[in-house]
Amino acid sequence: MASKAREASIILAASGTEQKNKALEKIAEALLNNKDDIIRANQSDIERSQSENISAPLLKRLKFDESKISDVVDGIYSLIQLEDPVGSTLMATQLDEGLCLYKVSCPIGVIGVIFESRPDALVQISTLCLKSGNCVLLKGGSEARETNRILAEIISRETKEAGIPEGWIQLLETRSDVNEMLKMDEYIDLVIPRGSNEFVRYIIDNSRIPVLGHADGICHCYVHQEADIDMAVKVAVDSKTQYVSVCNATETLLVDESIAPAFLPQLKIKMEEKRVELVGCDKTRVIISIKKADEKDWKTEYLDYKLSIKIVKDINEAIQHINTYGSGHTDSIITGNKEAANMFMNLVDSGNVLWNCSTRFSDGFRYGFGAEVGVSTNKIHARGPVGLEGLLIYKYKLIGNGHIVEDYSNKRRSFTHVKIK
Amino acid sequence: MASKAREASIILAASGTEQKNKALEKIAEALLNNKDDIIRANQSDIERSQSENISAPLLKRLKFDESKISDVVDGIYSLIQLEDPVGSTLMATQLDEGLCLYKVSCPIGVIGVIFESRPDALVQISTLCLKSGNCVLLKGGSEARETNRILAEIISRETKEAGIPEGWIQLLETRSDVNEMLKMDEYIDLVIPRGSNEFVRYIIDNSRIPVLGHADGICHCYVHQEADIDMAVKVAVDSKTQYVSVCNATETLLVDESIAPAFLPQLKIKMEEKRVELVGCDKTRVIISIKKADEKDWKTEYLDYKLSIKIVKDINEAIQHINTYGSGHTDSIITGNKEAANMFMNLVDSGNVLWNCSTRFSDGFRYGFGAEVGVSTNKIHARGPVGLEGLLIYKYKLIGNGHIVEDYSNKRRSFTHVKIK
Repeated sequence: MASKAREASIILAASGTEQKNKALEKIAEALLNNKDDIIRANQSDIERSQSENISAPLLKRLKFDESKISDVVDGIYSLIQLEDPVGSTLMATQLDEGLCLYKVSCPIGVIGVIFESRPDALVQISTLCLKSGNCVLLKGGSEARETNRILAEIISRETKEAGIPEGWIQLLETRSDVNEMLKMDEYIDLVIPRGSNEFVRYIIDNSRIPVLGHADGICHCYVHQEADIDMAVKVAVDSKTQYVSVCNATETLLVDESIAPAFLPQLKIKMEEKRVELVGCDKTRVIISIKKADEKDWKTEYLDYKLSIKIVKDINEAIQHINTYGSGHTDSIITGNKEAANMFMNLVDSGNVLWNCSTRFSDGFRYGFGAEVGVSTNKIHARGPVGLEGLLIYKYKLIGNGHIVEDYSNKRRSFTHVKIK
Repeated sequence: MASKAREASIILAASGTEQKNKALEKIAEALLNNKDDIIRANQSDIERSQSENISAPLLKRLKFDESKISDVVDGIYSLIQLEDPVGSTLMATQLDEGLCLYKVSCPIGVIGVIFESRPDALVQISTLCLKSGNCVLLKGGSEARETNRILAEIISRETKEAGIPEGWIQLLETRSDVNEMLKMDEYIDLVIPRGSNEFVRYIIDNSRIPVLGHADGICHCYVHQEADIDMAVKVAVDSKTQYVSVCNATETLLVDESIAPAFLPQLKIKMEEKRVELVGCDKTRVIISIKKADEKDWKTEYLDYKLSIKIVKDINEAIQHINTYGSGHTDSIITGNKEAANMFMNLVDSGNVLWNCSTRFSDGFRYGFGAEVGVSTNKIHARGPVGLEGLLIYKYKLIGNGHIVEDYSNKRRSFTHVKIK
């Protein structure tokens, strides 16, 4: 399968914008035309999962009904509107008369994506890959297997009819398929795992293929001494409670010593209204009566209605704490002091550094990237929410007229290096 | 050492352009002022290496004399002239009134570089890292240990005086240091190995840290049926012989069936003048009398005066051959047909795809990038010759005024997503 995808990737990389958009359109139409079959397959997944007693949130994510189908179809039409990211000239230089260098964007090639139980993820990821000219091997949650199968069939069939090479999208169905895939660094260029921390960490530890994504999301709000207290409470509550089970929810609140007596009692009231369990350092517990946090709390992604609180001496200690215990995902400072904000945003080594707003903002949709393939805490290639552009790389095209290096080595000719673009 | 570099990386990332350039200037001055000591240390490396009977080409690379010192100093002054790549706003979007997103370039962090015996590489790599705000752990060839030690000492001392945090540059001295380093994915963000294929492959196979570089350089020249024969001979000879022991030298020549009878006899004369050993497929050996190539030859990087030749039916077979046996480094087509050239450059999946010029052109200096840290055959982050920009990533800075996600989730507010840049 991987070698077939590799072959298809060469052709798909050179496919034109019109052809790719036509294929996307056919997918959108077919999803609507086949919605009854899709919903029936999904119903069967849901019934089987119910009989296996899977949790209510998981069941909710598994559900793929008419409204979800309509959402993904809308998503496909927005994707069609986006400019084709492939084939852009990113840089051009005349190296010498008649010898020009072009840096041109191109697809990465073959991407392996392992995703959670949401069937809409299959459609979003595969259409992003198609638009960016990448082939994709997909492994979805096994709870959604019937739904994924029919979706992959529809996408494969419709794109084939639109002239996209067969094999560009393929569905893996077992864990052992995934383990095999992780060894295929010869055919697969990038793996994007989405799912639980343990799962992502397992992938990172067991693959020689580059992995794009994140395991932990230990995000911080830091309330600086010059924060507006009302704003700090509001942003902290949103950061913690707006959706607790996601990677950009705040897990630890850092508070400057001097503002803590005024801030913490107000925070406690609002957090308790939302039924958030608070744990804190010794200094915090002098001001508000909560349970004790230990070293382990600073390293824990609760993904739940629980927040750890630590009082820090100053901004330096806050930055130090975040760079030590954080996961490089998203961290926010609340302050009225511009210098402190800039210092924080420059020195905190995270993909998303925020000032006076909620950590929950860091995602591809809110950032205006359209769909996203995931959020990366890597420090190479792509960082933060990753949309289409994270699926691209470039190649250098050099066009001459019989130019040879010996002429430059012998100083018969010399380079001009004139930027054209 | 790695944890010290990690700490320094936070400070260095936020250092200003002026400070970094001042530090670079101090390095340049100190290299000139201390040239006698440097040359003495290098002399001792050379004498020890001679007594250990190391090869003549290696001895030549090891030598670091007044002229080499002057070259690296010139390099530093060019680097000072280059724009600071850190802190550029790559994109800016107003997400809503008072809520703005900025994508800002920043250093990767801590980079481990393992390089061959040339001491000039130490200066080039460390100054590129400094300019791009990265900390660096260096391991040079052990033949150059005295020279590397004094160079690292000078660079460390001078930059410390210019206010760059201590520990930003550190020298590893043993193989076991390198093995330790490869495990430190907590502190080190990227490893760049330069050296023999086996060595680079060893690093790739033994590190969880992302690796930027290339193992093989199996480059091709393809002589299309519509090639100008004189040009094809000239470019093929340069591609093969201009410098045989480097990664962008051509190892295999592909020739269209219809042009082979006219082209190959002329090529043979010129290649034999340069004492190149030719091996070929059966069809080639019908036209010119040379030894037989076997399957292994298509996979071999000779790095020597040896060339394998294969006759192909057409451009499709040529592209297929390159994508199967090539290493994604550099491949050139010789043709007068623009459509064929574009097809080749689009479908050959290599970092550098060339038309009517020598494969030897693909390097950072010739491309006008100034110094380079290496040539990448990766398909993520950076591909082809890698200069300053391969040492950068970005972070997202989001600046609000108490904005919370709940307001958007409840449709009390909606995103504007207006591009500012």
